Amino acid sequence: MDTRNIGLRNIAVADTKISSIDGENGKLIYRGYEILDLVNHSTFEETAYLLLFGELPSKQNLADFSRRLKESRILPEPIVKNLTTRPKRARPMDVLQSSISELPDYDSDMDDDHKEANVRRAILLISKIPTIIAAWDRIRNGLQVVDPREEGSHASNFLYMLRGKDPNEEESKVFDICLILHAEHSFNASTFAAREIASTRAHMYASIGGAVGALSGELHGGANIQVMKMLLEIGEPNKAEWWVNDKLQQGGRVMGMGHAVYKTTDPRAGVLSRLSGIMSRETGTKWFEITECVERATKKYMLDHHKQPIYPNVDLYSASLYFSMGIPMDLNTPIFAISRISGWCAHVIEEKFAEAAPKPALYRPQASYVGRYCGPMGCEYIPIDSRPES
Amino acid sequence: MDTRNIGLRNIAVADTKISSIDGENGKLIYRGYEILDLVNHSTFEETAYLLLFGELPSKQNLADFSRRLKESRILPEPIVKNLTTRPKRARPMDVLQSSISELPDYDSDMDDDHKEANVRRAILLISKIPTIIAAWDRIRNGLQVVDPREEGSHASNFLYMLRGKDPNEEESKVFDICLILHAEHSFNASTFAAREIASTRAHMYASIGGAVGALSGELHGGANIQVMKMLLEIGEPNKAEWWVNDKLQQGGRVMGMGHAVYKTTDPRAGVLSRLSGIMSRETGTKWFEITECVERATKKYMLDHHKQPIYPNVDLYSASLYFSMGIPMDLNTPIFAISRISGWCAHVIEEKFAEAAPKPALYRPQASYVGRYCGPMGCEYIPIDSRPES
Repeated sequence: MDTRNIGLRNIAVADTKISSIDGENGKLIYRGYEILDLVNHSTFEETAYLLLFGELPSKQNLADFSRRLKESRILPEPIVKNLTTRPKRARPMDVLQSSISELPDYDSDMDDDHKEANVRRAILLISKIPTIIAAWDRIRNGLQVVDPREEGSHASNFLYMLRGKDPNEEESKVFDICLILHAEHSFNASTFAAREIASTRAHMYASIGGAVGALSGELHGGANIQVMKMLLEIGEPNKAEWWVNDKLQQGGRVMGMGHAVYKTTDPRAGVLSRLSGIMSRETGTKWFEITECVERATKKYMLDHHKQPIYPNVDLYSASLYFSMGIPMDLNTPIFAISRISGWCAHVIEEKFAEAAPKPALYRPQASYVGRYCGPMGCEYIPIDSRPES
Repeated sequence: MDTRNIGLRNIAVADTKISSIDGENGKLIYRGYEILDLVNHSTFEETAYLLLFGELPSKQNLADFSRRLKESRILPEPIVKNLTTRPKRARPMDVLQSSISELPDYDSDMDDDHKEANVRRAILLISKIPTIIAAWDRIRNGLQVVDPREEGSHASNFLYMLRGKDPNEEESKVFDICLILHAEHSFNASTFAAREIASTRAHMYASIGGAVGALSGELHGGANIQVMKMLLEIGEPNKAEWWVNDKLQQGGRVMGMGHAVYKTTDPRAGVLSRLSGIMSRETGTKWFEITECVERATKKYMLDHHKQPIYPNVDLYSASLYFSMGIPMDLNTPIFAISRISGWCAHVIEEKFAEAAPKPALYRPQASYVGRYCGPMGCEYIPIDSRPES
């Protein structure tokens, strides 16, 4: 095979109107709008609307959309019941993946695959994923499930369901910004999985189930858990430099540093660093400080030893941020899903209903066969009774 | 984007040793062995071994492998219990996708992602998927679940669990051949989804959950259900020619005819046609005869009107075959999964543990941004209070 195709890093597989990444200049743009403008002025609900519909909403549109989100938060009773039968060790991403595949059972109109039905499913998924994650975290800790309320922002309602009490305003705002930042990032592995599955005309839930699977991998959404494990291993700010140098000297890599696409600071990392600092001061924890030391030490090592700059990615500061907020480490990736579901759904809809040419088609790539070859008719099959024992 | 990249049809994305397709000459080869040799001499168990391990087994190897498969057939009790809570209308592919994501809950060694652990998970998945499907079909029909037995072939045990009684030898053999034929087909959409998810280092179950989602699409594994719907709509052999001509004149397509890769007869279609004929005579049903008429009429129309040959694909005769065996139509795609799981698992293992360069890497393709553009800093964000009502 052509090695330039490896991981498809250099192959454009589709046209998209959903987002653009300018890796050279550290810009991330959702539907034409710069991520920092959205962080400063928007909300997750408005951002999700923008991603799904392609335009910023009017006041009325946003009110309607938010109402639909709020009304859909509750889970079908049997799905909650099934959660209670699972062993406490079940991983939140596995729980999320399977619960999403139960949602079509309660969708009374599964034969309808028109655009409007897909938008309806998108709203339902955005709305219910936080409920699934919060319910599972309560159940595995032996706590009563807290039903969602039909009030409060998407961000604050999740923290309320998770903790059983209302978050303060600052926490809600910080979490809302996290959701804006993680909502969309073009053809990353989970989004590509969702589109690839949707390209077979599989339904929205089946496509999103696959995306959740891809997000769980430690080279993708699972990386923020790896960052937190690293911070816990380092333990104290004054140990970070030694730890980083030792790791890099051994040829290892520092999680949360470097990105395949950004050649400068990931615009999301700067915001998350600021938020992590705020929450860290608020809660009096050391995780932000350790993270800063990791960033500094990694940058210094790479410059000194490899004459290369390196920058933090979106995972570096989200780990300490969520940990400071008291969120269990293994919910970092599910929280990523709470946000990214909006981008995934927008991509599934674009995959199924793109209007302009070239239209997407079933993904069915080639592979180069490099295995056993005994001519075009295959190798001689020796029946098992005549086959030598190995 | 480069339109040659659409659907990745012309892009080799990886090296593989698992199978090769010679579309010009209608050859399909698993690990060096021609599919017709496997059909004539092998069994599904031996074929699955070949796909997973790369070599035909010795007698002892096959005995050990078959024993491991038999021992793993039973489902964890809570998974069966969760099936009983689902509404009867739940689609078998959704049920399969969610149940697969429950399996890691009962895998006591999820932190181990070495090759041997992945092989163990592959055997477990090959073994348990038929049990999930049979259990769900019994439950939705209000029947007692039939536990698997630790005896009998993979094929006969599935038919036994589905029906609650032993199949005859001929049926078991026919079904076994179907499983051989559907086991592997290179980088089709579901296999590519499994590999794409595994490329993030997501675990085996998460990857297979995504593959099941992709298989459910009607452009992929769902096509055999569409074929059966067509046969039911046609209803009688003497109506097939009129139906086909009418369909094609209106610019529609005939399901089960034509393939993106094969430019001649799909070698699997010939075998399935023969088997469908046998089962049809046995059961005195008309579905094989209708299918033959559809094949003939489609070929004639395409030659007469478009000067193009067209050939049946793997879906055309599997529909009538399974229907003649009394298998509910919406189990056609799950049965595809019962077989293809062996290929999927082989591919996940190849994706994670390929030894030769070029090694696979996280799939992270490019996309061409064709959306709104207001310069590199993005469009002007107008706060919602100043935004015009639409």
